[in-house]
Amino acid sequence: MYKKLFIPGPTDVAPEVLEKMATPMIGHRTKEATALQQSVSEKLQKLMYTRNTILLSTSSGTGLMEGAIRSCTRKKAAVFSVGAFGDRWYELARNNRVPVDIFKSEPGQPTTPEMVEEALKTGEYDVVTVTHNETSSGVVNPCAEIGEVIRRYPGVLYLVDAVSSLGGAKIEVDQWGIDICIASTQKCLALPPGLSLCSVSERAIEAAEQVEFRGYYLDLVRLYKRVKKDYQYPSTPSLSHMYALDYQLDRILEEGLDNRFDRHEKLAGMVRAWALRHFSLFAKEGYRSNTVTCINNEEAFVFADLSKALLERGFRVGGGYGPFKATTFRIATMGELQEDTLAELLADIDEILGLEA
Amino acid sequence: MYKKLFIPGPTDVAPEVLEKMATPMIGHRTKEATALQQSVSEKLQKLMYTRNTILLSTSSGTGLMEGAIRSCTRKKAAVFSVGAFGDRWYELARNNRVPVDIFKSEPGQPTTPEMVEEALKTGEYDVVTVTHNETSSGVVNPCAEIGEVIRRYPGVLYLVDAVSSLGGAKIEVDQWGIDICIASTQKCLALPPGLSLCSVSERAIEAAEQVEFRGYYLDLVRLYKRVKKDYQYPSTPSLSHMYALDYQLDRILEEGLDNRFDRHEKLAGMVRAWALRHFSLFAKEGYRSNTVTCINNEEAFVFADLSKALLERGFRVGGGYGPFKATTFRIATMGELQEDTLAELLADIDEILGLEA
Repeated sequence: MYKKLFIPGPTDVAPEVLEKMATPMIGHRTKEATALQQSVSEKLQKLMYTRNTILLSTSSGTGLMEGAIRSCTRKKAAVFSVGAFGDRWYELARNNRVPVDIFKSEPGQPTTPEMVEEALKTGEYDVVTVTHNETSSGVVNPCAEIGEVIRRYPGVLYLVDAVSSLGGAKIEVDQWGIDICIASTQKCLALPPGLSLCSVSERAIEAAEQVEFRGYYLDLVRLYKRVKKDYQYPSTPSLSHMYALDYQLDRILEEGLDNRFDRHEKLAGMVRAWALRHFSLFAKEGYRSNTVTCINNEEAFVFADLSKALLERGFRVGGGYGPFKATTFRIATMGELQEDTLAELLADIDEILGLEA
Repeated sequence: MYKKLFIPGPTDVAPEVLEKMATPMIGHRTKEATALQQSVSEKLQKLMYTRNTILLSTSSGTGLMEGAIRSCTRKKAAVFSVGAFGDRWYELARNNRVPVDIFKSEPGQPTTPEMVEEALKTGEYDVVTVTHNETSSGVVNPCAEIGEVIRRYPGVLYLVDAVSSLGGAKIEVDQWGIDICIASTQKCLALPPGLSLCSVSERAIEAAEQVEFRGYYLDLVRLYKRVKKDYQYPSTPSLSHMYALDYQLDRILEEGLDNRFDRHEKLAGMVRAWALRHFSLFAKEGYRSNTVTCINNEEAFVFADLSKALLERGFRVGGGYGPFKATTFRIATMGELQEDTLAELLADIDEILGLEA
């Protein structure tokens, strides 16, 4: 039986978008491939509020994050982490011999502009990484305000993981001064996994050109140069995902960006209001994600039992992640989700756990 | 208008296989995902004649090649090249600060067991890379005989790029002593691009564990450990490709491996016989690929004009590649292709160029 997905990726894909995954093959060195990739790029620039170049990578978001931190760090990277995917930046750097320090916030707390300021004051760093929306904990960071701080330190590049928020929350790349903003297809963009994407500033590419060993497949400079030449890719890309993405971006722009972001906010608001009636929220007030809500279950019930009962009703919700696996669970409100489906899920949880609606 | 593909990847995909690309999404940390990936692995073991572990990577074949040479080289890699994709191994190593030497054959000539023996005698190398089937030149290398040489040098790992031959030519991984055999989906497996795969021996993983900086996304040890645990992947993989691959492997096994390889041989034989009537072949006799034939056009005609005329008739053939772009063209016989379609193409070329049939 097919399950409605409330996990923080993969998310449900609209049937007409899935159909585009079945588009017959073309050569990847053809004018048709160029036109497809140019079309995707221009629509993504609208979604990301940027004039920067768009790069696609046939990899998960982790692949592009690795390419970005490895390609761009000349002196040392400052990684700001509010959870498992923030920690990942650190691991990516370490595994590539990239000099790096990590600055962790307390559980549920955001990365603050003050923390970033304090780190940059030392003059040690030329790259800052921030997780816009931490999938593991439902914390959203003040990326605009952090961007204001970074702007005052010329030569420092601003790398943002927007994997679990792009397409569900407004991210103004140029306004916020983000040099590399990374996302992937299987979250709020509501496509199957298998493709990641980023915007990249010219100054990020200029900086990366100073780094000698950037690898090959995930090297952002190599991707950038080929895209600038003819909107193609050094290796054969996932054309199926590009067809689906091109079509889905039309649907997203047709819904209207503000409408789409508002819908996500409203859905997350429903989850938060419901959760606060029975439980508490992991993320500090003011820093709560509109795409994934992490709820403290305070061990009031066994998540595996709830999950099983929900699966029997056709719903899949997310368990806790990493260190908070046992004490939290997660409900994602990403992509194509509509209010009535969410209301049904929440009512079912009430019923299963015997909570008062 | 849709074009029949005779380029060396992407190749045409059967409509019922394309449909599997549109399978609705599931969680990638579920029992269903585990079962899917286990099923794909077991079928690939049959196709590759191996008991080694199968790894899938959401990347092009280049990604896995990079992961392999970077992960496995402890002392120095010996790269044997018969064309552009052989050269790629060298570039992958260099861009990752991996010590490497390259041994190139003359145009159209294979890598010989003697060349490999001579290199290994120095004791300098602990990794050998060979291109089984060079996509750019249509040369197939004697990988079984090369394996016999390598076997006599304990501790030397044998890495083979089978990207453009797996599924179209018999590759006996265990018999030939191949430690890592790499392929991707868009060639003889006749699936859309976006996923690559390899078999990996335990001794290759043990060797890789001695290498300190293996990166993250393309690190074979990380992939291996997760697959061994539960047939899942460290990052969200392209589930759509896995569904299609699982189904296509059933079709391949149903056709029968020997039947499939024979069909490819027969098709390539038709191309070779035709080409030899009018032109000459780039690859030396005895080392001619059954999946892509590279033909010297001796500047007898302008390829762009032929290509354009064929496109109008619904066929796309391959131009020359790299240094042989101007003087060769390529006809791939990969995947789902049947004799009658190929005969139609060759007759059309005869007609367009005014050649006697």
